[in-house]
Amino acid sequence: MAEYSAPKGMRDFLPDEMDRRERAIEAIKKIYRKYGFVPMDTPAMEMAEVLEKKCGEEIRGQIFRIDDGKHALRFDLTVPLSRVVSSNTFRKPFKRYCIGPVWRREEPQKGRFREFYQADADIIGSSSMRAEAELIACAHEAISALGFCGATVLLNDRRLAFKIAQSMLPGKESSLLRLLDKRGKISRQQMIEEFAKIGGADPKSQEMFIDFLGSMEKSATEKQRLELAEEHCPEAAESLSEIISLAQEYGRSIKIELDLALVRGMDYYTGPIFEIKLGEGIGSVAGGGRYDGLLGLYGQGDYAVGISLGIERLLSLMKEGKRAKGGVFVACTADEHYAQTIRIASAFRAAGIVAHTDLNSRSLKKQMEFASGCCAFIAIVGEKETAAGKLTLRDLESGKEELLGVEEAIRKVKERLA
Amino acid sequence: MAEYSAPKGMRDFLPDEMDRRERAIEAIKKIYRKYGFVPMDTPAMEMAEVLEKKCGEEIRGQIFRIDDGKHALRFDLTVPLSRVVSSNTFRKPFKRYCIGPVWRREEPQKGRFREFYQADADIIGSSSMRAEAELIACAHEAISALGFCGATVLLNDRRLAFKIAQSMLPGKESSLLRLLDKRGKISRQQMIEEFAKIGGADPKSQEMFIDFLGSMEKSATEKQRLELAEEHCPEAAESLSEIISLAQEYGRSIKIELDLALVRGMDYYTGPIFEIKLGEGIGSVAGGGRYDGLLGLYGQGDYAVGISLGIERLLSLMKEGKRAKGGVFVACTADEHYAQTIRIASAFRAAGIVAHTDLNSRSLKKQMEFASGCCAFIAIVGEKETAAGKLTLRDLESGKEELLGVEEAIRKVKERLA
Repeated sequence: MAEYSAPKGMRDFLPDEMDRRERAIEAIKKIYRKYGFVPMDTPAMEMAEVLEKKCGEEIRGQIFRIDDGKHALRFDLTVPLSRVVSSNTFRKPFKRYCIGPVWRREEPQKGRFREFYQADADIIGSSSMRAEAELIACAHEAISALGFCGATVLLNDRRLAFKIAQSMLPGKESSLLRLLDKRGKISRQQMIEEFAKIGGADPKSQEMFIDFLGSMEKSATEKQRLELAEEHCPEAAESLSEIISLAQEYGRSIKIELDLALVRGMDYYTGPIFEIKLGEGIGSVAGGGRYDGLLGLYGQGDYAVGISLGIERLLSLMKEGKRAKGGVFVACTADEHYAQTIRIASAFRAAGIVAHTDLNSRSLKKQMEFASGCCAFIAIVGEKETAAGKLTLRDLESGKEELLGVEEAIRKVKERLA
Repeated sequence: MAEYSAPKGMRDFLPDEMDRRERAIEAIKKIYRKYGFVPMDTPAMEMAEVLEKKCGEEIRGQIFRIDDGKHALRFDLTVPLSRVVSSNTFRKPFKRYCIGPVWRREEPQKGRFREFYQADADIIGSSSMRAEAELIACAHEAISALGFCGATVLLNDRRLAFKIAQSMLPGKESSLLRLLDKRGKISRQQMIEEFAKIGGADPKSQEMFIDFLGSMEKSATEKQRLELAEEHCPEAAESLSEIISLAQEYGRSIKIELDLALVRGMDYYTGPIFEIKLGEGIGSVAGGGRYDGLLGLYGQGDYAVGISLGIERLLSLMKEGKRAKGGVFVACTADEHYAQTIRIASAFRAAGIVAHTDLNSRSLKKQMEFASGCCAFIAIVGEKETAAGKLTLRDLESGKEELLGVEEAIRKVKERLA
């Protein structure tokens, strides 16, 4: 017997897992919708030239291409959004969400897949920091709707990061930003060594770099960081202050920290950038920022800012648990009663209750075994019950049985499952 | 300014359309779940060898292949299901639904796309006609949940179709089945000419074929068709009678017609086959059948029967209509009140109401214009309101305005949107 599995780095979502995913996605959609975001989706495939316009070398090598040389699979949801927005007319600000799969040919490892879901919310057409604050509050609420409390928002600004890098190693800003992105993954000592390698070997630069690393330590206050920001890039400092102050008005306690070494990989960011973390060692569960330059590549330009929930990581952190046992198995003691079990199952379904019947003419014992694996109740329809126009309802948890009319049984089940 | 569109035959789902799709998919899921089906999904990509195992020549040529020569995009949801079921252990009967996109490189035409959604429900591990009856009833209910009444189920059996073909043109069964599949698309006279071409030129065969076509006319009764079925294939006739009789027990009036010329394209069907039609000229909106042989190709074999809702056709038949205007736009008369508008919007959202705020510091007039395009209410927060801890709620349909506390406003909005 040959056995086949899903392709490397891709997953079959079996029912327990799929049920969790559907519920989590539903919960996120509900929050996005409450903030006035509307759904929009694009094809899995784009023309390869569209994807390659602004993807960076690393991702370029990870694109799944169709063998016609023209099509390729989307690697994120931002590029297709930019294409659609720049060739359609929307009332601005245009706020859309999209939750769907993307594909990257990465080397699979724990928690990293070649097909994975993204859950993005973006605001097109607002240059105001109100947009950033709304996205941060909305993502924070979505994360807490999935059961995670105490998320911390890390905040920085690309303009500021560049200016700070420039002050330390003029002309080597990009290398230094790439190094800063490794912070937390390599030791402080390694950071300093790497800094020397990319050109910061002289004592003055070293001192500045060490001072800068110091400003990132826990001992430094938000005020000190904000002062450092003001010194290097006043307009970024103003944006950051505004975001921090607005984000406090959303009726939620949102913890925000300035992280002047936050860089984020995508090279299309042009202003504030942010990540949301759940705790030490967990890594970020959401990230985003302002990318005012991207849309212009595809047509009419516009302001843009977005956030992407790391839905795969969030799902992996959620307690696994089995699906709750819901619904009723309407058992059948003999073939001649099957029509009656259908009628009773239909009555349960009409009341919104999940109902199963026995498709395999099994013994009552086998039916009960099966039912106990997926249902909260079993309803038995035999000789006695059919004659009385009733059914025997058995609570599979307590084992309690009652002879009831269909309407009474529906009421009982609804009460218990509510 | 360059403009880019979705690839040929593929679609961007803009918000109005996407909203309709999400709601329709939600409605179908709800029905599938009520019948005890559970969700399961598989990757967009499969290994090409998996897809090619049993796809027929036509579809083989339509597969989108990745340029690594190994991966390809799924062209239906049945093949991946077969792969997963045959390499996992599920409690049987296993009933799953899956609603998702598939890809075929067909020549795009009205209503036919290269990326389209399927909405399948399948039952694995039951040889009983109870499974067919349940699928038919469930799909019929899903179609009516989308607002379509009076659907007709066409029913046939592959074994019977083969036997009838054999009686008319022994050795040419496949050609004749392909011809029967064209019924309704070409004229009766053309059918007879085609029949002659594939070997039925002698008077006796012609007479049998014409008689058979006659049995398909409206004038023929179900009883006559069932007798014809019994004569050619008693076991198929018994299955069909059982399906018809069970399907009447689901508390719905389900119109079922035997259509002895129904063939359906996929060559993996082995027993009863069915389609659901909405009316003359609309074509089928659902189709399925028994495919007991397919799973064995991927590992352990088992009984299988499934139905696929033609969700793209159903969506195209649904009234388009705009999204209902819901929710509240919390307008802001001056920047210093923006924090207060966030607090009020947050209160609406906490009550489950969609709330927008002004992200662009626009004039009140501009905000009202924007709001009237997407909201049922506008809540104005200005000097007077902020001082009184209240807001002015304006019903954008009636134009009526009231000065209200936040709680009262929430109650008003909820009442109106309920």
